[in-house]
Amino acid sequence: MTELTLAKANAIIDTAFALGAEQKFKPLGIAVLDAGGHLLAFQRQDGSPFIRAEVASGKAYGALAVGSSSRALGVAAVERPHFFQGLSAVSGGKIVPVPGGVLIRNKNGDVLGAVGISGDTSDNDELAAMAGIESAGFVAKV
Amino acid sequence: MTELTLAKANAIIDTAFALGAEQKFKPLGIAVLDAGGHLLAFQRQDGSPFIRAEVASGKAYGALAVGSSSRALGVAAVERPHFFQGLSAVSGGKIVPVPGGVLIRNKNGDVLGAVGISGDTSDNDELAAMAGIESAGFVAKV
Amino acid sequence: MTELTLAKANAIIDTAFALGAEQKFKPLGIAVLDAGGHLLAFQRQDGSPFIRAEVASGKAYGALAVGSSSRALGVAAVERPHFFQGLSAVSGGKIVPVPGGVLIRNKNGDVLGAVGISGDTSDNDELAAMAGIESAGFVAKV
Amino acid sequence: MTELTLAKANAIIDTAFALGAEQKFKPLGIAVLDAGGHLLAFQRQDGSPFIRAEVASGKAYGALAVGSSSRALGVAAVERPHFFQGLSAVSGGKIVPVPGGVLIRNKNGDVLGAVGISGDTSDNDELAAMAGIESAGFVAKV
Repeated sequence: MTELTLAKANAIIDTAFALGAEQKFKPLGIAVLDAGGHLLAFQRQDGSPFIRAEVASGKAYGALAVGSSSRALGVAAVERPHFFQGLSAVSGGKIVPVPGGVLIRNKNGDVLGAVGISGDTSDNDELAAMAGIESAGFVAKV
Repeated sequence: MTELTLAKANAIIDTAFALGAEQKFKPLGIAVLDAGGHLLAFQRQDGSPFIRAEVASGKAYGALAVGSSSRALGVAAVERPHFFQGLSAVSGGKIVPVPGGVLIRNKNGDVLGAVGISGDTSDNDELAAMAGIESAGFVAKV
Repeated sequence: MTELTLAKANAIIDTAFALGAEQKFKPLGIAVLDAGGHLLAFQRQDGSPFIRAEVASGKAYGALAVGSSSRALGVAAVERPHFFQGLSAVSGGKIVPVPGGVLIRNKNGDVLGAVGISGDTSDNDELAAMAGIESAGFVAKV
Repeated sequence: MTELTLAKANAIIDTAFALGAEQKFKPLGIAVLDAGGHLLAFQRQDGSPFIRAEVASGKAYGALAVGSSSRALGVAAVERPHFFQGLSAVSGGKIVPVPGGVLIRNKNGDVLGAVGISGDTSDNDELAAMAGIESAGFVAKV
């Protein structure tokens, strides 16, 4: 029940898209990464710029890299820009420190992966990520 | 009718997974790239190694890079290894020259994108890609 | 019991070093990666060339990338050099396709990580990896 | 007596972990690099994000690159951001300019390597690095 399967990843994406449609968000790109930071599922809605996969994945990767959220990482990047630059460099440039990347946790608090969303405002991207995670039976916290 | 939408990309993936299940293929990773070589949709079945996204995308990217298939690119790589090495380098190392990457064309022959599949034998990966493309109303040729 | 903890990783390294001492292997570098391909523990014995960390990790990473062993990947690299070149490129150059990289599995067959060893002959490197894995209560297969 | 052996590197890590346990630090990743900036030993405590190896090594690498500490490098990065950006680039992106990277010197002041720690606050990471270095009979200065 607590594993992050492909079916769960697709359910997360479906819920986030449904929220986006209901709230009239702009087209979204949604990446679900596993706990090791590797892509499990991605979908980019029609009309989205082509770099959505990298940005959405970069938010999720950032959340995993710091064991928090890309929102928290964004705050750290403003306060300590050189920390972020170093982190970005050692990750091979895989991190986007902007809200919209949220860890997927089980009830025990174990990190199973992360969702990254890019397309609307960063706040809305994050809301959609959290809705998707919670709807699939996982725990989201930013 | 002939555009490569997200719905079409998902349909391609669904059909390829269905063929894989029917033929008892190993777990697959399937990437659908747009005509610019950018990721549109990806799904990795449970039990697949983590690098599936890169390999599947690499096959599709290779097909797009040479306007043919990753199978043809594999043949070229054997015959002219330095051509392939140069192509790999200028692409930023994004190409996997092995069967399983197939162009998505419309009836006019226009290239709309490519599918890349990795998981079973390269021949079976390619079969699944072709089945997915044809089922979505597009033209596949290797 | 079946998790790959740091204590287990260190036990794997200790056993492999003990085997190396007993069999008079040359100084070894031993990397233990988690299931996502990230470094969990590494030790390089005195007198080893400085690039041991990259080579040992590269064998383990290769095993994880193909869901097999770096020995099997080495065979594939000889038979299909362009497949290996593509795989190497999409991994960011992280793979060394030579025996000595072995998956760490639990009794159910789940992949928990991989050990990579470099220092003596590749065959001996692999033997040490297998001994370490088995001694820690996991299953090794090449 | 003054060489940085693997046994010394492991002793440094053990002491730093002991301090972390005593002071209730968060899980740490600890890298010990030799004088050439190459990894000698690394351990990542359970519950740490996967990128610890790169960040811990990046702090130690930065200390070695400027012949000082990653704390001093962090100050320099704030004062002269373009110096740091250039240094990061020519190092291949291997530097994290944040406290926690400390040179390992012998009594003569010769640089034998560096320790990098990541996991708790940067100040605590640095304290643990210094404790480890001193306990192994070396000299730490930041």
